[in-house]
Amino acid sequence: MAARLQGIFTPNLVAYDDAGNINEAETRRYINWLIERGVHGLYPNGSTGEFTRFTPEERRRITAIIADETRGRVPILAGAAEANVRETIRACEYYHDLGVRAVAIVAPFYYKLGPASVYEYFAEIGRHTPIDVTLYNIPMFASPIDVPTVRRLADDFPKIVAIKDSSGDIPHMIRMIAAVRPNRPDFAFLTGWDAALMPLLLVGCDGGTNASSGVVPELTRKLYDLTTSGQLDEARRLQYDLVTLFDAMLYQAEFPEGFRAAVKLRGFEMGFGRQPMSEKQMSDIGALSNTLQCMLSDHGFTDQPVQGCPPRGPSMGTGGSGFSGASGDDVGRITQAVLAELKRRGLA
Amino acid sequence: MAARLQGIFTPNLVAYDDAGNINEAETRRYINWLIERGVHGLYPNGSTGEFTRFTPEERRRITAIIADETRGRVPILAGAAEANVRETIRACEYYHDLGVRAVAIVAPFYYKLGPASVYEYFAEIGRHTPIDVTLYNIPMFASPIDVPTVRRLADDFPKIVAIKDSSGDIPHMIRMIAAVRPNRPDFAFLTGWDAALMPLLLVGCDGGTNASSGVVPELTRKLYDLTTSGQLDEARRLQYDLVTLFDAMLYQAEFPEGFRAAVKLRGFEMGFGRQPMSEKQMSDIGALSNTLQCMLSDHGFTDQPVQGCPPRGPSMGTGGSGFSGASGDDVGRITQAVLAELKRRGLA
Amino acid sequence: MAARLQGIFTPNLVAYDDAGNINEAETRRYINWLIERGVHGLYPNGSTGEFTRFTPEERRRITAIIADETRGRVPILAGAAEANVRETIRACEYYHDLGVRAVAIVAPFYYKLGPASVYEYFAEIGRHTPIDVTLYNIPMFASPIDVPTVRRLADDFPKIVAIKDSSGDIPHMIRMIAAVRPNRPDFAFLTGWDAALMPLLLVGCDGGTNASSGVVPELTRKLYDLTTSGQLDEARRLQYDLVTLFDAMLYQAEFPEGFRAAVKLRGFEMGFGRQPMSEKQMSDIGALSNTLQCMLSDHGFTDQPVQGCPPRGPSMGTGGSGFSGASGDDVGRITQAVLAELKRRGLA
Amino acid sequence: MAARLQGIFTPNLVAYDDAGNINEAETRRYINWLIERGVHGLYPNGSTGEFTRFTPEERRRITAIIADETRGRVPILAGAAEANVRETIRACEYYHDLGVRAVAIVAPFYYKLGPASVYEYFAEIGRHTPIDVTLYNIPMFASPIDVPTVRRLADDFPKIVAIKDSSGDIPHMIRMIAAVRPNRPDFAFLTGWDAALMPLLLVGCDGGTNASSGVVPELTRKLYDLTTSGQLDEARRLQYDLVTLFDAMLYQAEFPEGFRAAVKLRGFEMGFGRQPMSEKQMSDIGALSNTLQCMLSDHGFTDQPVQGCPPRGPSMGTGGSGFSGASGDDVGRITQAVLAELKRRGLA
Repeated sequence: MAARLQGIFTPNLVAYDDAGNINEAETRRYINWLIERGVHGLYPNGSTGEFTRFTPEERRRITAIIADETRGRVPILAGAAEANVRETIRACEYYHDLGVRAVAIVAPFYYKLGPASVYEYFAEIGRHTPIDVTLYNIPMFASPIDVPTVRRLADDFPKIVAIKDSSGDIPHMIRMIAAVRPNRPDFAFLTGWDAALMPLLLVGCDGGTNASSGVVPELTRKLYDLTTSGQLDEARRLQYDLVTLFDAMLYQAEFPEGFRAAVKLRGFEMGFGRQPMSEKQMSDIGALSNTLQCMLSDHGFTDQPVQGCPPRGPSMGTGGSGFSGASGDDVGRITQAVLAELKRRGLA
Repeated sequence: MAARLQGIFTPNLVAYDDAGNINEAETRRYINWLIERGVHGLYPNGSTGEFTRFTPEERRRITAIIADETRGRVPILAGAAEANVRETIRACEYYHDLGVRAVAIVAPFYYKLGPASVYEYFAEIGRHTPIDVTLYNIPMFASPIDVPTVRRLADDFPKIVAIKDSSGDIPHMIRMIAAVRPNRPDFAFLTGWDAALMPLLLVGCDGGTNASSGVVPELTRKLYDLTTSGQLDEARRLQYDLVTLFDAMLYQAEFPEGFRAAVKLRGFEMGFGRQPMSEKQMSDIGALSNTLQCMLSDHGFTDQPVQGCPPRGPSMGTGGSGFSGASGDDVGRITQAVLAELKRRGLA
Repeated sequence: MAARLQGIFTPNLVAYDDAGNINEAETRRYINWLIERGVHGLYPNGSTGEFTRFTPEERRRITAIIADETRGRVPILAGAAEANVRETIRACEYYHDLGVRAVAIVAPFYYKLGPASVYEYFAEIGRHTPIDVTLYNIPMFASPIDVPTVRRLADDFPKIVAIKDSSGDIPHMIRMIAAVRPNRPDFAFLTGWDAALMPLLLVGCDGGTNASSGVVPELTRKLYDLTTSGQLDEARRLQYDLVTLFDAMLYQAEFPEGFRAAVKLRGFEMGFGRQPMSEKQMSDIGALSNTLQCMLSDHGFTDQPVQGCPPRGPSMGTGGSGFSGASGDDVGRITQAVLAELKRRGLA
Repeated sequence: MAARLQGIFTPNLVAYDDAGNINEAETRRYINWLIERGVHGLYPNGSTGEFTRFTPEERRRITAIIADETRGRVPILAGAAEANVRETIRACEYYHDLGVRAVAIVAPFYYKLGPASVYEYFAEIGRHTPIDVTLYNIPMFASPIDVPTVRRLADDFPKIVAIKDSSGDIPHMIRMIAAVRPNRPDFAFLTGWDAALMPLLLVGCDGGTNASSGVVPELTRKLYDLTTSGQLDEARRLQYDLVTLFDAMLYQAEFPEGFRAAVKLRGFEMGFGRQPMSEKQMSDIGALSNTLQCMLSDHGFTDQPVQGCPPRGPSMGTGGSGFSGASGDDVGRITQAVLAELKRRGLA
């Protein structure tokens, strides 16, 4: 029995060239940078990696590039969802041949399926996959994988070894762990919701697939280390900072454009995404980029923007080490954007 | 300026063979049968047609088969949504070369995009498509296309000529028509919500892309004819019957399995869908099939099942011509299933 | 067996005096005005009438005033929901003694109850009420009353004689009528959703409890008459106009402030509501009032505001008789407000 | 400046007599029992206390009884929401005269109000209340109080001293604390969501108003003590147990009947609630009561039921000290009930 999946797996973005194709060289450079900064693993073809916007051939190529560049330094979790069960199993076979650690497969999307169908979908995969499978539950985008279904799949298929859950719902995570772990101590629980990483680790999660780790791998890794080693006061301060940064990237632009803008600030040529943007959206991203640059400069990751930054708000109990973007007014503004956005998308 | 799209376009299912591949011969036979029974047009690669479960190559082949078999007898509206704008425009070019009447493109899905992004997505398509485009709004599955966005797209792109709306929300349809028609009298409004076809036609819709027309093309066509010719009492009775049938097919099995079961009752070998089913689901579909057979036998479309049918409930004012499946208890039972199902999927 | 409830029942506002108390004289004047303009009935203590913002004693007094003023000229449907079943039955007894035609009782709210509890709640009332009861289904505010529950209550309690449904969902209305009418031909179906009044009447509703009838009783009554007499082209134009007016009143201010502002334009001193407003909200209502005045002046109900009105947009097929507020840009703006508002409240 | 509100405030049920009236003697006995078992405070007229099902006079009487019985041994937080601002302020004055520590006021409900209106509502109260006010945010039942609104109210009104948040959303709590605490270090944050009490305390909450503390005051208090003193492994085990118990009480019966059934098991005559129940509901509560009795007997709070209990499932890392109700199958069953219930109420 292999060891449980553990730690921070970065759901990495893919760099585009001017023609909108995969920029292989820059993607390789970015992957190396992430590994050097301490992420425990990589996760191509996740939601952050815009897997639905690539063709099936491109999805395979992205994973092949990353596997080649990584050369076993860190484990890879490859997103393998394709148009139907048969195509998905073929992708599992391909990724198995590439030598990645496991695949992650999102529940069926577009159609919203009930639990029985979600079980059958993963059961068929569980029976035929040559590679370990991570279930991927993201109810805001795909059919939910409910707790009894996770439990049945864990009980029935040894090749299903983990779940990545992006709901951010802590009692839900507690219920899953309580239902699955007695029979499957090797089964891993990863969270995709950066804004609750610390408390989720504290209730029993093994790690996370956190988009913020593609932007500030140093901090996400540090939050993981502080939390798992019981340094809770420091962890709490960092978690508060991460909420501010995560909210800004997640809610102030169409996902994942805020994350792409932030990765650019770390020195990468990520190009333009495949979803076209209006001039206003471009200009909003410019403004967001300034906000993000101020946040990143507080931690020494970038210089301040030439026009400077607003005075730094006191962080919760930190004596001022918080992100300067998180001054009171910003918090209010960001929060309103959060709520508006969530509601616009029917999530709140 | 071409005439407005008008009438009933059938979002046809595709028949599968035993290996789960496209059964071309049976699909051709089914298409002919639909045309002979009076549908005004065909609509491959819609939601009923399970477009997301096919590969890009299969989607093209399905439309090519249908275009070949139809030979211009009825217009074709081809679903053309692909992984991103560039791939979608390529599909538009391909379908244009096939000679179909127009394409239908669903708003971006998986990620839920806001109005500005939805506009930019369709604007890019509107600028480059060689073929007329129908917007496809299905907010339960994809990013919503709101009224101001429909209006801007209609005002800015002559190649965008229609919208198919599956929300079933009548005031929303009224708002769209009021916003768009003054500037674009050629713009067509089609509804995908069979349960409100009659009232939607009465408030100004031009037609529908109705899944029930793939099962009972005679009835959906007749409802269209009765309503547009002002025979409202008869139309109302038929609309009530269609609600009963539509609810049973839509809510008593995973979509579109209820429709597939009903098409089998009309004499076609539709095969098994690509979403695997449990034994219980199979057996539930068997029971549903009996219910559907009773409903269809009331209209003379099939024999009764060998075990017979429950006594026919009085239809609303018809003196007994309603579907026998619609006896009081069935209505209650179906409705409970409806509500449970809607809620399970977060739609109510 | 009494005749079915039928026609337009106005859910009337209550006028406040400067101290925030019931302005009895102005409320009486308003009620007379409504009756003179042709509404079929009155409906105090509805949602429009802000029943939750009055004390139990005030609710009784409001109905007593209206019953006294009406003197039997039109039937009264009195909202009778109180804190619990016992208090509600006492209110039924009181309203029965006042001689009103029936009461309307909203499903339990605050706590969201399931169908079994909703049934038991109304069953207890059905057993003990001395007066006819109308169920009131408004799922955006209160526990939903689903179709099987309506049917069971209709079958079991002759004193339950009608349902007012404010969901605006037409297939839902069809399912209810199909389920209930065979056993209870005397049971009435009223809609509270003005934006779909015409199509709901066409599928079988008996009338409506429509807030717009408190503002433009002439038009709501005319829409009812045109629709029930089969003059569909004229009815459709009026329905389109009503959607525009209804949307403006409903979505551009906190409910029911837009309706209060419009009634003021008809010449009544309605006072300030009990929910305090910010200066910005007051000023927004001032702007809305101008928009509404333009709409009302198009129908000759008011003069134009002193600063004039925007040029009148062509109505759908009317040659210009639509509300001038409904120019293209307004439609877009209002619609955006609609969507934003619905989503803010979790309704879409 | 008074000390921050802190600890576990029990939202206590009220005992009914056979006639459905307040059973004063039993309510007094229950209150004493809670205080003796270590709850830090009491919270009459909360959602658990069914405040909406009492008349205004009854609500005052309930608090008066509890204040009289408590005699200052623990602080009281009295629910004070009435029909409108004026009535609510009068209730504040009454509770102030009773000498309770503070009131809790839920945001306006039935109508769903936007942030500006929620602010104005509480601002008017904040200006006139003689007693400290706790905001009460329970978005599943009442208008949401968003983060910018909490911040504005905290900044503007010193008499507003706390918020009770029942959303259970941890990032939301983090955003609130980050927004409010810099300017108002005396402002307290209490959670009403028992299933996440431990992680919420760990991110900075001051305590909770937790319904489970009315059933197992020993355990809720212990969870608070273990968490705030950093004994996280023991705290986690207890939190897992509480999730199981809380889920059973919350989702397997109409709220708060599961809690009433559990309090009966602790030896109190709570009577029947005011919401009538069907025979099936009564029998379901009987079955639930057995499940709850098994759970409570595991902790020595009751004997096992005469028919015995299922074998105890291993708790997460506890070597068997978990609730015996939480065997694997129960977890599955309860979780399915959870999901079904949440969805039925439109919460998921």
